[in-house]
Amino acid sequence: MSIQFTPVKFHGVENLKEATPQNLEEALQELKAGIKPLDQEAITGMQQRLNAKIKPLRSLGVLEDLAQQVAGIQRTAHPEITGKAVLLMAGDHGVVTEGVSAAPQEVTVQMFYSYLRGEAGINILAKHAGADVISTDIGIASPLNPAELMVNRVKSGTNNIAQGPAMTRQEALLALLTGAQVAAKAIDSGINLLATGEVGIGNTTPSAALVSVFTGHSVEEVTGRGTGVSDEALRHKQEVIKQALKVNQPNPAAPLDTLAKVGGLEIAALAGAILEAAYRHVPIILDGIISSAAALTAAQLAPLSAPYMISSHNSEEQGHRLALSQLDLKPRLDFHMRLGEGTGAALMFPMVEAALKIADEMATFESAGVTTGDF
Amino acid sequence: MSIQFTPVKFHGVENLKEATPQNLEEALQELKAGIKPLDQEAITGMQQRLNAKIKPLRSLGVLEDLAQQVAGIQRTAHPEITGKAVLLMAGDHGVVTEGVSAAPQEVTVQMFYSYLRGEAGINILAKHAGADVISTDIGIASPLNPAELMVNRVKSGTNNIAQGPAMTRQEALLALLTGAQVAAKAIDSGINLLATGEVGIGNTTPSAALVSVFTGHSVEEVTGRGTGVSDEALRHKQEVIKQALKVNQPNPAAPLDTLAKVGGLEIAALAGAILEAAYRHVPIILDGIISSAAALTAAQLAPLSAPYMISSHNSEEQGHRLALSQLDLKPRLDFHMRLGEGTGAALMFPMVEAALKIADEMATFESAGVTTGDF
Repeated sequence: MSIQFTPVKFHGVENLKEATPQNLEEALQELKAGIKPLDQEAITGMQQRLNAKIKPLRSLGVLEDLAQQVAGIQRTAHPEITGKAVLLMAGDHGVVTEGVSAAPQEVTVQMFYSYLRGEAGINILAKHAGADVISTDIGIASPLNPAELMVNRVKSGTNNIAQGPAMTRQEALLALLTGAQVAAKAIDSGINLLATGEVGIGNTTPSAALVSVFTGHSVEEVTGRGTGVSDEALRHKQEVIKQALKVNQPNPAAPLDTLAKVGGLEIAALAGAILEAAYRHVPIILDGIISSAAALTAAQLAPLSAPYMISSHNSEEQGHRLALSQLDLKPRLDFHMRLGEGTGAALMFPMVEAALKIADEMATFESAGVTTGDF
Repeated sequence: MSIQFTPVKFHGVENLKEATPQNLEEALQELKAGIKPLDQEAITGMQQRLNAKIKPLRSLGVLEDLAQQVAGIQRTAHPEITGKAVLLMAGDHGVVTEGVSAAPQEVTVQMFYSYLRGEAGINILAKHAGADVISTDIGIASPLNPAELMVNRVKSGTNNIAQGPAMTRQEALLALLTGAQVAAKAIDSGINLLATGEVGIGNTTPSAALVSVFTGHSVEEVTGRGTGVSDEALRHKQEVIKQALKVNQPNPAAPLDTLAKVGGLEIAALAGAILEAAYRHVPIILDGIISSAAALTAAQLAPLSAPYMISSHNSEEQGHRLALSQLDLKPRLDFHMRLGEGTGAALMFPMVEAALKIADEMATFESAGVTTGDF
């Protein structure tokens, strides 16, 4: 499933691709300003529903947290999931010329086709959870066939961040808003539980750079092995990231500029998707370090977006946990995964649904005639 | 769903309830002796299948471990899940007279009826996962209506372990083999993925006692708050457990005697279910500390049963992680649950199925035309 770009008015803009830089800046402002805090009354209402169930108070732990969070997001004590999707954003990275990835760049486009054919890891795990995979080319380096698959592409891969900025501010903004629009169309189609996914050879490098900038942790602390590089290659990758930070001098207080300088197109698109989810009162499940880098960017742009995020797994990338911690999130699945695509996030779909089923289907002390008390 | 006891030949015994102590001892010997190591060839075959998939090697982490484990258990590189069930064993505990639980004993039977009505937490989570709940009264204290529900009951609650043994060796053996028989009937009906669940007010107390004996950790280290007791009540609970260990002097090298002295009827039944699962080449997912106490007992009786166990969540009970560690297992879900019933284990069903779907449905590098290499 691939959602096509069609010109509709979106945050005040008629057509993102033809909008002026000023239009795009205003659209982002409108998007950010439209994100509201969660509804406390709905959260309290959900907790009251859960407290009446035949179980010790709070004994379902994180399932209860999730039910309350989704209630607060949907602004009702009786939230419902009507459809689920992984938003899979694909982009390439100029920094691969520095030798930061063990896999060649052509794997990005090869994998993109495999998502469209429904045969990759994320397709299998999403299908298992009853979720769609919505794959978007936001910045693959090579041409696609048919050409319509490229309709959302902002740029054919970023520039090498070790030499200069990944992209212009306007490109970052367009990628972000395009990602937001992909999320909006998914939501318009009835989907109200999203997950973030991505493909892009080399993208753990800009992700680590962003996590370092936004969390203040050192490059060494946040940099992992990606899809599996050696000790020596890990040190080289860290050097490249340090070089990128030195050349670009990103400022965490200017998140859009930081994204443009050391980010990636698919990371920008995911940041936009997260903001749009929050704007539209839809929970969004985060995957690994690339998703977390996007989430940090979104939270820096609009701090009120953070409570709309749901964590999933603790990936093998060490920056991931630091990023989650900054977002006040804890990983819930300890599965030692490092595939990306949204595969960790997809495993969390059934957990969110289980949380709501507890609220909807479980008996109460009163209905079941079970003795209640302070236990 | 409740599986009825009907006399069939089981590990050489015609009718468990009418068997002599000697018959029962021999049945346990036969059960233990029939448990074989996992099939290494099947594990290797599964790893080869997974290595051909379009992903970095081993990048699906625990999902790959689970696929290999189930392959080794089913003794084929192409394992299948044909049916899933939670085996929920119910039993009461004489030690509640010492005031170790915040909830009154009547809650055990009240909850048992709620499982039969399909309205408790475990029913909702099992249904969500497409699994049955098979509820067995192995030792509830009060009568049940209709009386046929008590057909598997070995004893109407254990004796107070702070004063003497919970039950006789023969009662422990009968409870264990009855649990094994419940598992066997589930397996005969087509179920080949099991999970352990239980209800029994006070049962974290004998569980902590068993975990302390079998792991060698102190009572303080392994004792938690159960369904939510205060600081003072926790200290009292620890004192009661120490008293039980002092009075009974259990020896970890004599696991069946230890189970009889400081265990519980539902714990014995779960230990039996675990042994039967291993005997029948069926993986079994462990829930919280009560399940882990049963698992430790099973592993002490038959060390080869351990590789048939799958861990699920990291419960709030502190002895749980120590028990899992002794079994060489790591919790995979960090959900802060403390409900019991098998609720944590039920969340693991979709993970095991996801693991097998990865092996069955995902494309290979060859089929998808994706570039492969050492990454």
